[in-house]
Amino acid sequence: MKKLKWGMIGGGEGSQIGPAHRLGALADGRFEFTAGALDHRPDVGREYAQRLGVAEDRAYGDWAEMLAGERGREDRVDLVTVATPNSTHFEITKSFLEAGFNVLCEKPMTMTVEEGEEIVKIAAASGRICAVNYCYSAYPMVRQARAMVRAGEIGKVRLVVTNFSHGHHGDATDADNPRVRWRYDPAMAGVSGQFADCGIHALHMASFIADDEVESLSADFASTIASRKLEDDAMVNFRMSGGTVGRLWTSSVAIGRQHGFDIQVFGETGGLRWESEQPNQLIYTPVGGRTQVIEKGEAGLCEDAQRLSRVAIAHPEGFPLAVANIYCDLADAIAGEARDGLPDAAAGVRSMAAVYTAVASAKDGGAWMDARPPMFQ
Amino acid sequence: MKKLKWGMIGGGEGSQIGPAHRLGALADGRFEFTAGALDHRPDVGREYAQRLGVAEDRAYGDWAEMLAGERGREDRVDLVTVATPNSTHFEITKSFLEAGFNVLCEKPMTMTVEEGEEIVKIAAASGRICAVNYCYSAYPMVRQARAMVRAGEIGKVRLVVTNFSHGHHGDATDADNPRVRWRYDPAMAGVSGQFADCGIHALHMASFIADDEVESLSADFASTIASRKLEDDAMVNFRMSGGTVGRLWTSSVAIGRQHGFDIQVFGETGGLRWESEQPNQLIYTPVGGRTQVIEKGEAGLCEDAQRLSRVAIAHPEGFPLAVANIYCDLADAIAGEARDGLPDAAAGVRSMAAVYTAVASAKDGGAWMDARPPMFQ
Amino acid sequence: MKKLKWGMIGGGEGSQIGPAHRLGALADGRFEFTAGALDHRPDVGREYAQRLGVAEDRAYGDWAEMLAGERGREDRVDLVTVATPNSTHFEITKSFLEAGFNVLCEKPMTMTVEEGEEIVKIAAASGRICAVNYCYSAYPMVRQARAMVRAGEIGKVRLVVTNFSHGHHGDATDADNPRVRWRYDPAMAGVSGQFADCGIHALHMASFIADDEVESLSADFASTIASRKLEDDAMVNFRMSGGTVGRLWTSSVAIGRQHGFDIQVFGETGGLRWESEQPNQLIYTPVGGRTQVIEKGEAGLCEDAQRLSRVAIAHPEGFPLAVANIYCDLADAIAGEARDGLPDAAAGVRSMAAVYTAVASAKDGGAWMDARPPMFQ
Amino acid sequence: MKKLKWGMIGGGEGSQIGPAHRLGALADGRFEFTAGALDHRPDVGREYAQRLGVAEDRAYGDWAEMLAGERGREDRVDLVTVATPNSTHFEITKSFLEAGFNVLCEKPMTMTVEEGEEIVKIAAASGRICAVNYCYSAYPMVRQARAMVRAGEIGKVRLVVTNFSHGHHGDATDADNPRVRWRYDPAMAGVSGQFADCGIHALHMASFIADDEVESLSADFASTIASRKLEDDAMVNFRMSGGTVGRLWTSSVAIGRQHGFDIQVFGETGGLRWESEQPNQLIYTPVGGRTQVIEKGEAGLCEDAQRLSRVAIAHPEGFPLAVANIYCDLADAIAGEARDGLPDAAAGVRSMAAVYTAVASAKDGGAWMDARPPMFQ
Repeated sequence: MKKLKWGMIGGGEGSQIGPAHRLGALADGRFEFTAGALDHRPDVGREYAQRLGVAEDRAYGDWAEMLAGERGREDRVDLVTVATPNSTHFEITKSFLEAGFNVLCEKPMTMTVEEGEEIVKIAAASGRICAVNYCYSAYPMVRQARAMVRAGEIGKVRLVVTNFSHGHHGDATDADNPRVRWRYDPAMAGVSGQFADCGIHALHMASFIADDEVESLSADFASTIASRKLEDDAMVNFRMSGGTVGRLWTSSVAIGRQHGFDIQVFGETGGLRWESEQPNQLIYTPVGGRTQVIEKGEAGLCEDAQRLSRVAIAHPEGFPLAVANIYCDLADAIAGEARDGLPDAAAGVRSMAAVYTAVASAKDGGAWMDARPPMFQ
Repeated sequence: MKKLKWGMIGGGEGSQIGPAHRLGALADGRFEFTAGALDHRPDVGREYAQRLGVAEDRAYGDWAEMLAGERGREDRVDLVTVATPNSTHFEITKSFLEAGFNVLCEKPMTMTVEEGEEIVKIAAASGRICAVNYCYSAYPMVRQARAMVRAGEIGKVRLVVTNFSHGHHGDATDADNPRVRWRYDPAMAGVSGQFADCGIHALHMASFIADDEVESLSADFASTIASRKLEDDAMVNFRMSGGTVGRLWTSSVAIGRQHGFDIQVFGETGGLRWESEQPNQLIYTPVGGRTQVIEKGEAGLCEDAQRLSRVAIAHPEGFPLAVANIYCDLADAIAGEARDGLPDAAAGVRSMAAVYTAVASAKDGGAWMDARPPMFQ
Repeated sequence: MKKLKWGMIGGGEGSQIGPAHRLGALADGRFEFTAGALDHRPDVGREYAQRLGVAEDRAYGDWAEMLAGERGREDRVDLVTVATPNSTHFEITKSFLEAGFNVLCEKPMTMTVEEGEEIVKIAAASGRICAVNYCYSAYPMVRQARAMVRAGEIGKVRLVVTNFSHGHHGDATDADNPRVRWRYDPAMAGVSGQFADCGIHALHMASFIADDEVESLSADFASTIASRKLEDDAMVNFRMSGGTVGRLWTSSVAIGRQHGFDIQVFGETGGLRWESEQPNQLIYTPVGGRTQVIEKGEAGLCEDAQRLSRVAIAHPEGFPLAVANIYCDLADAIAGEARDGLPDAAAGVRSMAAVYTAVASAKDGGAWMDARPPMFQ
Repeated sequence: MKKLKWGMIGGGEGSQIGPAHRLGALADGRFEFTAGALDHRPDVGREYAQRLGVAEDRAYGDWAEMLAGERGREDRVDLVTVATPNSTHFEITKSFLEAGFNVLCEKPMTMTVEEGEEIVKIAAASGRICAVNYCYSAYPMVRQARAMVRAGEIGKVRLVVTNFSHGHHGDATDADNPRVRWRYDPAMAGVSGQFADCGIHALHMASFIADDEVESLSADFASTIASRKLEDDAMVNFRMSGGTVGRLWTSSVAIGRQHGFDIQVFGETGGLRWESEQPNQLIYTPVGGRTQVIEKGEAGLCEDAQRLSRVAIAHPEGFPLAVANIYCDLADAIAGEARDGLPDAAAGVRSMAAVYTAVASAKDGGAWMDARPPMFQ
C-alpha cells in the first residue's frame, strides 16, 4: 500500500478539471501529489503547486521542464495526468509516453486521427499505460452493465440507444459569453461542437457496454442557434462490428435537461438502462419478465462493481468518485494488475475518427461512412 | 345535452379497439350507441351489436348495409367510427363522408398517399368532420403543451425530440406468433412496420405540439430480428417548415420499455417534456430557471386542458379517457363548436406521406427527402 | 349483457361527485341512467335529470319521492347511488335498503358508529348489496397487491405504512374560503377533519391489502392552521387483529404534495408499494432480492386485476375508471357473481369507529384504544 | 493551504467506517493522515496505520498511547476522529477534548444523557471543536433547505415529516447473523435498536432544517421480528420549541427500501422535500405555485451549498463527499472560520435524550414526554 507518485500538467487554480483530478487521485489514498506544472504561466503554476503541497523542486513551470526534471529521477512520478487545453494533449502525451511515463490524458486525446494513431503506436511501443479519461465508464453500475453483456445475460446485443443532452448552452442571449462561445468556434474547438464535447462520451459508453466497436455512422448536425458555426445538436446513427444498431442524440440546447446522459442496451434476451443522474442503479428487464432495479452494493455484482464502490448499498456515490475509480484502476494497473476497464489510446483514436466521420457525414446529407480509424479498418 | 347518435364499423367482440371506442364514446354521456356493423361475419356482428344495446334494425351485417340503412333515416347517426382492418379504412371513410356523415377513422387513415389526398378533398367538399384517432393528442397536458407553444411561452421552437419505444415484439422466440408477425409482413402491414404502427403517433405529436408541419426527413430503419421484412426499429431525423429540427426514435424491441412514448420540445426560452406513462404532468423549464411540474387540474391551464379533464388535480386520468376526449371534441364539433385540437384528414395524409418518405429514405442510405404529400408541397 | 338500471341521489349540476359517478356507472356500458333525485331543490333536480336523459316520470324531486316512485315499479332501478351531503347518507341508505334496493353509498357511510352498525344489520337482513365507495381499492394493482398478500407472496404481514397527504388546504390566507373552511368546522364536518376526509381511505386500504382489520390505535392530531377547530394533520399508529403494525399519516397542509396517497406493506418474505399518482404499477421486492415493477396488464396477474383493466399493458388508467371498477363489481354482484373486493357496510362502520377512536385518543394524549365498532369487538 | 494534521482512533482494517473517514478527510486535500490508533489490537493497529502512510512514531497501539504521544508534540494533530465502538466514545472524546484537541466523534456521541451533558460542558470549557458526525446534514442541498427555512422562504414551519427506513434487517432467517443481531441486543446496542441507529439521523435532520429543537415526543416501538428485544420499527411524533409538529418513521424491516431517508418540511408559504437517494436535488413548492426542482450547482444557492459542492450542476455527488463536507467545515472551523452547519455536542446530547425519551414513551403507551436533556429544559 505504498502510495504512488502522481503528477499533473494543467488543472491550475480556478479550473474545474484540476480539483476533479486531485480529488480523483487522492480520495482513496493510492496516490500522493508529487509533481506538477499546473499553469501556462510558469510562476503561477509553481506557486500553486507548492500551495497544494508539492515540493519546491517538483513544482515546475511548464510540461517540458517537468519532463526534464522527472525523467532523470530515481523516484520519478508513477503517473502523469494531462489536463491542459485540448490542442496540447498530443504533444505532451507523446512526450511523456516516449520518456517511459504512464499517462492519463483528458479527452479528446488528440485533435486529429493521425495524431491519435501515433499515440496508439507510441503507447504500444513504450509498454506504458496510456489511459483516456472517459470517466463515466468507471461508474460501478456501468461496469456491471458491461459484465452482464459479456456474460450473455441479455443475449446478443441488437440495439444501443444513448443520449447526452443538456440545456446549458440554450440561452441565445448568453451565446456570446466566452465560456460558451468557444465551443462553437472552429478556431478554438476544432471541427465539431457538441458531438466532440459530449457525444463522444456517449459513443464510448456504447462501445464499452456493448463490448463492440463502432464501424460506420450517419450523422445529422444542427446549429439551432444560428450564430454558431459548429453544431449544438447532433443525431448519429451507427452500426457496430457485430451488427448492433446504434442511436445517439446529443444536444446542448435541451433546456431543462441538466446532465441527460443515459444509455439503453437491448439484446436478444433482455434490456439494460443506466442514467448518469442516478448512477447507482442499473435497470434490467429480462425478455418476458419484470423490470428490476440492480443496486450498487447488492450481493453478487461483478468484481469491478464491487471493487469500485466504497460505501454500502443505497449510499449514493457520484461523479467525482467515478473519476477516482479511473485512478483506482490506474493504481492497480501500475502495480501490475491488469484493468481492462481502463479506456485506452485505442478508445481515444476511435473517438477522433468518429468525430471526423460524423462531421463529414453531416455535411454530405447523412451519408453512411466508415467510422473507424484507418489503423483499425 | 341531447345525446348524439353514434355508430361503429368494426370493433367486434374480442378486439381491443372496440371497447376502447365504446368507452370513449359513452363515458361522458355525450353519445348513445345507435348503430353498428361490428364484425366481418354479418350474423356475428348483428348479434353482438344487439347484445350491446343497438336496436335490431340498426345492427347491420356490413358497412355497406349500414350505409344504406342509415343514409335514408331522419334520425341517422351523427358520427361513424371506422375501426376496421387498415386496408378498408379508405373505402369506408370515403363512402360515409360522401353520404354526408361525420367520421372518426382509426389510424392509418389510408394505405397510400393518393388515397389520403382523396379523403382530404372529399372531406372538404362534404363539409363534414373527418377526424383521425391520434388520441394521444387529446391528453389534457398535451393540449396544454401546444397552448404554451402557441402562446410563445418557450419562444420559437428549435428542436423536437420524441420517442415511441416498447419491447413487446422483442422476443425472437415469439416472433412467429401471428399477433406479432403480421406487423412485419409487407403483405399485411404495407410498406412499414414499427414506424407506421407507432412512429406516426410520435410524428403527429411533434407537429401537434410544435404547431408546425414536417417538411423533410432522413430515416434509418433496422430489422433487428433478422426474419422480419419490415423494420422493428427506426430513427427519423426531420425538419419542420419553420426550421425546427426533429429527432424521432421508435422501436418494438426495446425490452423493458413498456409504452415509452415521450416528447420533448425545446424553444428559445424554454423546454417542455411529456411522457405518456405519466400523462397528467407536463414538465416545463424556462431558460435559466428551474424545472417545474405543471399538473393537470391546476389553476390557469389552457381552455382545452380544463375542458378535457374530469377530476381534480392529481387524480390521474389515463388512456381510455384520452380517447374519450376525442369524442368530447367530436360532440362539440358536431354541435357547431370548432375544436381545432381534433386531428383531421390532413394529419392523416401527412402521416402516410411521412411513412412512404421514410421507407424511401431508409432504402437510399438516409437521403433527405421531402416528406409532404404532393398537395401540401 | 342487458344493461342494468341505475339511479342516483345527489350529484347535481356543478358537483364534482356527480360526473364521477355518472362516468363510473356508464363508461363500461353496464348500466343505464334510469332515475335520479339530483338536487336539494326539487325542480332543479328534475330538470337536470331530464337533461341527462332520465325520463320525466323518473326524474324525481327528492329521495323520498324517488323511493316512493321506484319501489312500486316492476322495472325499478337495480342500483341506487347515494351522493348527497354526508349527514343524509344514513337515512337514505337505510330507507332504500329496507325497500329492497341495492345501494352504493358515498363515504362516510354514516355520521356515527351506531348508525353504521344499524346499516350493517339492515343490509344483512335485506339480502341486498350495500357498498361504500372506497374506490381506490378498485384499482387493478391494488387488487393485485391484496391477491399477492392472500397468496402468501410476501409472507405474514408485519407492517403497513400508508400516507394520504396533500397541500390543498395549506394556504392560511385561503382558510376562510367556504369550500375549505367547512371541513374544519365541527358543525359541518363532524368530529374530525382530515382524518375523516382522507385518512379513512388510507385506513381502509391498509385493511384491504393486508386482508386484516384494525383492532386498536393511538392518534396524534394537529391543527397547524390555528383557526381550525378540527385537525388538518394526523398521525395514527395502529395494530391489526393478526398483530400487524400500522402507521398512517394524513395531512392537508403538505404543500407540494398533490395527491400523496401511497401504501407500503411489508411481510416476512417481501414488500409491496403502491402510489395513487402512479396507479398502474405495483412495486414488489422479495426478501433478499431485487425490486421489481409489476405492470397493470402484464401476464399472470390476479383475476380482479385482469378483469378491471381495459387497455393493454402500460396504457395508463386513472381515477375515474377506478370508480368505474366499483360499478363493474356491482354489476357483477347484482348479476349474482360474488365480488369480494367490493367495500361493504362493515367497512363503512369500521371507518366510523376508527374516526371516533382516533379523536378520543388524540384528546387523551395518544392513549391506545380499541378501534373496532362494538359489534365487532 | 497548509494541510492540517489528522488522526483517527478506530476505523481499522475491514471496517466500513474507517475508509469513509479517510476518504472524507483526504478527498479535498485539506488534511494529511498523521496519527492513528486504528485497532483494539495494538500491533495490528500500528502496522495498519503505517501501511496507510502514518509515520512509525505516530502509529499508536491504543487511544491512551495516542493521547500521551500527541499531547506533548509541537506538531500535534489538529483533529482527532473517534470511530471506535459506541460504548467508548464518551471516554475518548472527553479525554481528547480535555487535552485541547478538536474532536469529530461518530454518533452516538455517548451512551447516556448524563455523559452527553458532560461532553457539552467540557467542550465549552475547552474552547475546542467537538463535532458529531451527522453527515447527512452536510449534503449541499440539505444546507440549502436550512438556508431557505432561515430566510423565511417557506414561512413559519408548521410540520416536519421524515422517514429513515430500510429493509436490510427484514430477513428473519438471517436475524441471528451476528452482524445484524447485535443491533437488537440490549447488551450490545443499549436501550434502543432502530431508532438509536437510524432514527436519530432523521431527528437531527428535522432540527437542522427546521432550525428548531425537539421539545416533546410520543413514541410507538415494535419488534416485528419476535425474537428481537429492541425495536426494529418505530414511529415518533414530536413537537418542536416553536410549535412545529413532527412525524418520524424509521424501520429496518421495510423490505424493498434501500436507504429510505427523506424529509419533508412544510411551512406557511411553501414546502420542501429532500431524499438521500437523490441527494443532489431539493424539491420546493411555493404555496399556490408549481413544484420546482432546485439542483445542486444552480446559480444563487446559499453559501454552504456552493462551498460544499465540487462539480458542476447535475454531476451527482454522493454520501462519501457528504462526509468530506464535514471535514471541509472542520478544516475551516479549525482555521478560525465559523461553520455553524457543523453538528456539535449539543446535537449529540439532544439525540441521546430523544432516544431515552422515546424508549420511555413507547413503554408507557405513547405518553407525551419532555425530550430535552435536563440542561436544555
